[in-house]
Amino acid sequence: MSSSAPETPFFVNATAAGEIPSYNGDEKAKATDFANYFCSYAQLYHQKQMLADHNRMAAYHSAILGNQDVFRDKVVMDIGTGSGILAVWAAQAGARKVYAIEYTDMAKHAERVMKANGVDHIVTVIQSSVEDVVLPRCVDIIVSEWMGYMLLRESMLDSVIRARDKFLKKNTGLMFPSHTTMFVAPVNDEDERKAAANDYGSSMSDWAEFAQTTNQVYGVNMDCLEKEFDREQKEYHMLSSRWTELPPEAVLAEPAMIKQLDMTTCTLQDSRGIDKDAEHSAFDFEIDGDEINNPISGIAGWFTADFRSRTDAGGRDAPKLSHPAFLSTGPENGYTHWGQQTFYFLSSIPILKGEITRLTGALEMMRTKENSRLYNCRLTYSTSRRRNDEPQDGSVLMKSGKIEQVYQIP
Amino acid sequence: MSSSAPETPFFVNATAAGEIPSYNGDEKAKATDFANYFCSYAQLYHQKQMLADHNRMAAYHSAILGNQDVFRDKVVMDIGTGSGILAVWAAQAGARKVYAIEYTDMAKHAERVMKANGVDHIVTVIQSSVEDVVLPRCVDIIVSEWMGYMLLRESMLDSVIRARDKFLKKNTGLMFPSHTTMFVAPVNDEDERKAAANDYGSSMSDWAEFAQTTNQVYGVNMDCLEKEFDREQKEYHMLSSRWTELPPEAVLAEPAMIKQLDMTTCTLQDSRGIDKDAEHSAFDFEIDGDEINNPISGIAGWFTADFRSRTDAGGRDAPKLSHPAFLSTGPENGYTHWGQQTFYFLSSIPILKGEITRLTGALEMMRTKENSRLYNCRLTYSTSRRRNDEPQDGSVLMKSGKIEQVYQIP
Repeated sequence: MSSSAPETPFFVNATAAGEIPSYNGDEKAKATDFANYFCSYAQLYHQKQMLADHNRMAAYHSAILGNQDVFRDKVVMDIGTGSGILAVWAAQAGARKVYAIEYTDMAKHAERVMKANGVDHIVTVIQSSVEDVVLPRCVDIIVSEWMGYMLLRESMLDSVIRARDKFLKKNTGLMFPSHTTMFVAPVNDEDERKAAANDYGSSMSDWAEFAQTTNQVYGVNMDCLEKEFDREQKEYHMLSSRWTELPPEAVLAEPAMIKQLDMTTCTLQDSRGIDKDAEHSAFDFEIDGDEINNPISGIAGWFTADFRSRTDAGGRDAPKLSHPAFLSTGPENGYTHWGQQTFYFLSSIPILKGEITRLTGALEMMRTKENSRLYNCRLTYSTSRRRNDEPQDGSVLMKSGKIEQVYQIP
Repeated sequence: MSSSAPETPFFVNATAAGEIPSYNGDEKAKATDFANYFCSYAQLYHQKQMLADHNRMAAYHSAILGNQDVFRDKVVMDIGTGSGILAVWAAQAGARKVYAIEYTDMAKHAERVMKANGVDHIVTVIQSSVEDVVLPRCVDIIVSEWMGYMLLRESMLDSVIRARDKFLKKNTGLMFPSHTTMFVAPVNDEDERKAAANDYGSSMSDWAEFAQTTNQVYGVNMDCLEKEFDREQKEYHMLSSRWTELPPEAVLAEPAMIKQLDMTTCTLQDSRGIDKDAEHSAFDFEIDGDEINNPISGIAGWFTADFRSRTDAGGRDAPKLSHPAFLSTGPENGYTHWGQQTFYFLSSIPILKGEITRLTGALEMMRTKENSRLYNCRLTYSTSRRRNDEPQDGSVLMKSGKIEQVYQIP
């Protein structure tokens, strides 16, 4: 036997209720969860990857340094400070006190960064999970970079929400970011889609050869495992979303917003995913074949984050941000380390001249049973075609059946 | 934040005594260990990789099917049966009863393989860790493919030893394999060594650029982390052994045996690694520059496994194997999925015409503190050169200082 390190945890590290075990699970689930989750953030290599993401850096930098009037003399908490850059910026922006929380040993490096930048009298680095932190007072501002692929992956939002409800001043407290939004759009990316389909195809012809050899040379019939191998390979190659850095022109229609979070009021339920009956889970795209003639390869999803004034009713008295900042991980904005997650269709949808192709459906997003930091997406969609001189409710040339696929976000 | 799945477990999943927690650890350590260890073996993809390793397959196949007189009417246990091939062979070789133990859900597939091959009346698949198995009787033969990189990685040997002591008939029982041996040799592989050194070099120049940008554009000084980043990168690129499939001609001197295990008598202590004072841990290679003129790039390590009659005093009455079989994962034998682990030197050692270069040293192998299924190797060595008309104890042209490096086996 010999196998390289596992790709995804095999054991259950989710509570029965689907919460992250760091807060509310048995000790075994919590140990497994922490072991798997925090591991990579303990490496400077990964910290550097995030610090070299200039869209990410610029958004947080201008959100904090561009709003020094808001930070002046305030008490700030940075959740998951890593090597500490947001905490340094908060101190540079005039904060009176910054609590920088970090679970991994990266906390030790963060402390040295504070000293090297002359802010160690302002920033206190606390090595702990934020759930276990005890503070002498409430805080005015929570800054955190908690977002994962498709916004929610990693489920760190749970920890941020719990810390917010425990530590942030209710009527005047500010969240950085203040609002986050998820988008989807139909995209063209046939090279990648076909490459995945080819990999899937060759893995199956490889199996056929393997099964024959095993039977002929070693006298054992393995045919009964082909179906399961097929399922495994299809899931891996075709029914897993992929990290993509799509060019703007890959987007075939105006992106649709599928979820919006007000960071001041969102709940643990919001962090669970996108319910199939949620307000925005449905999408409805129209593509005119006279404007676009590339087929639809799949659906891409991404998020944006806003740093602006509170919009909730309870936040009327909160300080206003005179210089809002904005981070987009969409194709229009160039590289971020998040990229877009693209869900490739098993077969592409052609766009025909003289016709309008309509793609309607919904995206449901839910935590996996095995690991509450990972998510699956159920994509349900159908297409219809009409001549482009017909109105939207006019006569249809062809309407597809409803297609439903569950994708994992690796 | 966003990070792909962790490469190595970050949390401690080792007991204080360095044993694998599956047997003797607290429940948290055990949960983490099982989650990380068994994960990949639950995939048919990895099973297929092992089943398509023809050196591995042929050795076990001829060991079992080539010794049907030994298997006839016997009770056999297969530890870690995976998709079940060794159990099928044992049944085909005439075993009366086979207990096939498998912890992962692969057990369900193994059951179907038994049915498909008409041996389900002989083979009972038991889904369990072998430590928790209860059997109605002792067994005559234990077959298992438990070997990892550098033989011991994954520490599955612990489970095999415990099962042997609990279930195998003391004087007549047979282990398949019966003996295993580890080898090292100096090797030439400058392309790989230089590629690793270049990767390390460019990661550091990349850091320099990153640190400057972060300071200039975002006003934060990260210089204090350079040393730690350097340590991390050096460990990753240079002080990690690499999987290699070396051609026979890469081996520069007769391989040295560094550890030998009699599977019938070896102990948990043997499974811990190679003690620095162990009998065979030292090596002494001589390379004649008139025969070889490629530099020494590093030391490669691998193992062999024998399937032959018992050689221990207590096994005098055990059945004899009339057709011994043999598996080598060394460079002389072509591809196996284990390959060789190569420990590249930070600088290569030139071999000069008219001179004999002598490389003496020792290899110590020990479990890591964090994970008792992973190992580090401490390589200690020095070189000396003499004219090739001098005897081994003659006058020396140059003797290097002693070099000591700890490598991780990823």
